[in-house]
Amino acid sequence: MIYDLIIIGSGAAGLAAALYAGRYKMTTLVIAGEFGGETATAGTIENYPAIASIDGYDFMKTMKDQALSLGVKLADGRVDSIQKEGSAFKLSTKEETFEGKTVILAFGSRRRHLNLPNEKELTGKGVHYCWTCDGPLYGGKTVAMVGGGDSSVKGVNFLGEYAQKIYLIAKGKEILAEPINLDQMKKLGDKVEVLTETEVTTIVGDKMLEKLVLSKSYQGSSDLKVDGLFIEIGFDPDTSLPKQLGLKLDEKNYIIVDNKMRTNVSRVFAAGDATNHFGSFKQDITAAAMGAVAATSAYEYKNQSKT
Amino acid sequence: MIYDLIIIGSGAAGLAAALYAGRYKMTTLVIAGEFGGETATAGTIENYPAIASIDGYDFMKTMKDQALSLGVKLADGRVDSIQKEGSAFKLSTKEETFEGKTVILAFGSRRRHLNLPNEKELTGKGVHYCWTCDGPLYGGKTVAMVGGGDSSVKGVNFLGEYAQKIYLIAKGKEILAEPINLDQMKKLGDKVEVLTETEVTTIVGDKMLEKLVLSKSYQGSSDLKVDGLFIEIGFDPDTSLPKQLGLKLDEKNYIIVDNKMRTNVSRVFAAGDATNHFGSFKQDITAAAMGAVAATSAYEYKNQSKT
Repeated sequence: MIYDLIIIGSGAAGLAAALYAGRYKMTTLVIAGEFGGETATAGTIENYPAIASIDGYDFMKTMKDQALSLGVKLADGRVDSIQKEGSAFKLSTKEETFEGKTVILAFGSRRRHLNLPNEKELTGKGVHYCWTCDGPLYGGKTVAMVGGGDSSVKGVNFLGEYAQKIYLIAKGKEILAEPINLDQMKKLGDKVEVLTETEVTTIVGDKMLEKLVLSKSYQGSSDLKVDGLFIEIGFDPDTSLPKQLGLKLDEKNYIIVDNKMRTNVSRVFAAGDATNHFGSFKQDITAAAMGAVAATSAYEYKNQSKT
Repeated sequence: MIYDLIIIGSGAAGLAAALYAGRYKMTTLVIAGEFGGETATAGTIENYPAIASIDGYDFMKTMKDQALSLGVKLADGRVDSIQKEGSAFKLSTKEETFEGKTVILAFGSRRRHLNLPNEKELTGKGVHYCWTCDGPLYGGKTVAMVGGGDSSVKGVNFLGEYAQKIYLIAKGKEILAEPINLDQMKKLGDKVEVLTETEVTTIVGDKMLEKLVLSKSYQGSSDLKVDGLFIEIGFDPDTSLPKQLGLKLDEKNYIIVDNKMRTNVSRVFAAGDATNHFGSFKQDITAAAMGAVAATSAYEYKNQSKT
């Protein structure tokens, strides 16, 4: 069969698109390698409007159930190739090929990880990638931020409202951030220690993060006891499928979309962290909204093509 | 005191902005005439990603509690005047005057009502203003759509996927809609009856909508038995405050914002249905996302102004 819509990705953007597409009665397939995107493993969510507090996995599970209850189909796998063939797109995973009249790219943008042992196991248990989301958990606590760019400094400034002590750990000789953000960080005074030319070599903890081991001693010890670790070392948006389709990307490889989540290629829409739409502000609420908008645009296309 | 941020409106956009602002530790005040915006009285919500089903009132109550728990203040009242005075904005209701360094306009866009007896009482109980939201409740049922423009025809086409019979009731001699949407409506065949030069004069029902009385008989009777009534006769965005501030509006009086929800006036942001951002697609999920973005932009301004 040829689906009305194929969605790549099952994070907040992909599954919100699936919810709306299901309600529009479009035949819809969601293809995803890993269920629930970044959100499913990120721990407790407390900044999603109208849900006081929910585990990321449960959050994505509810979205999945919403889509399934509307007849949306799910397929496992990573889409390796996508081609326009006449009036349909052909999408292939290692095992299968699917066809759809319209496509929504909602595969997110993978945050860079340190790739250390324990990092994955302790994610949401002391290790975090989203300070906007999880910073408020560390009121009065000691935290570390790994990163040397503007986002990590913005993160330190945000954490400054909550934590009592913040270590900014940077690989390079200096922190490269906007002067305005560096100035604000300076105003936090003793609360912030900047450790340059330093890397985290080990993440220690059994069920919860206990401490870090650093590549360079700080105050006579390479052990650094922290309650929380925030990793803010950038994103790697996947460019393979956008390039196969000839999509326009911005300078950071995010897909350029308009306010209707349309890309420069007809019948190809994009939503969520893979796009440039809300800049560096990448949240579940914005991803879900973009997904809803993208599905609506795909539905509008479907109606036009009927006539 | 001078608030870091004053938000006008307590619908999904306003309270999502309050949630984010609270997490940014901005001193924040929400001023609203009517709690919860359109959503609070619109009945069951089944198209908000990650919430399977919730009453509109409970939905807005959760958002309100989220904001309150973060220290956000709420004030009752309608803001009649807003003026920039030096580095702050002065906002006045009938009773009080408040000052804020930044402002988010999230006062929505009031849907036009028929202004008939029973209309308010039966809202969510057979009477609806949002077919995208509530259309799926009418699988196999008979519904009426009041309106004569493009949105009402799009609504009929959407309802065509669910309802078994749809009456499109229009005041004028003809339906003014995009040809493509009219063509699609024609394809629904007998399922749709278009009643022109006809008005709904009475909404009949005790606890649930029972029937409509029409200004002109249809098949020998002015009574029309329907299970659901959708009213799609346009919106009236409030232009008073935008005009006082000198904001740029689009041709339909929606506030023009960029992707960061900035208006043309510094330190004034807008979010939700009052804006043009996602065009005619006006949903809780998009309003909430815009609120979160607007609060983030206000927070960025606050940080800049500190230095």
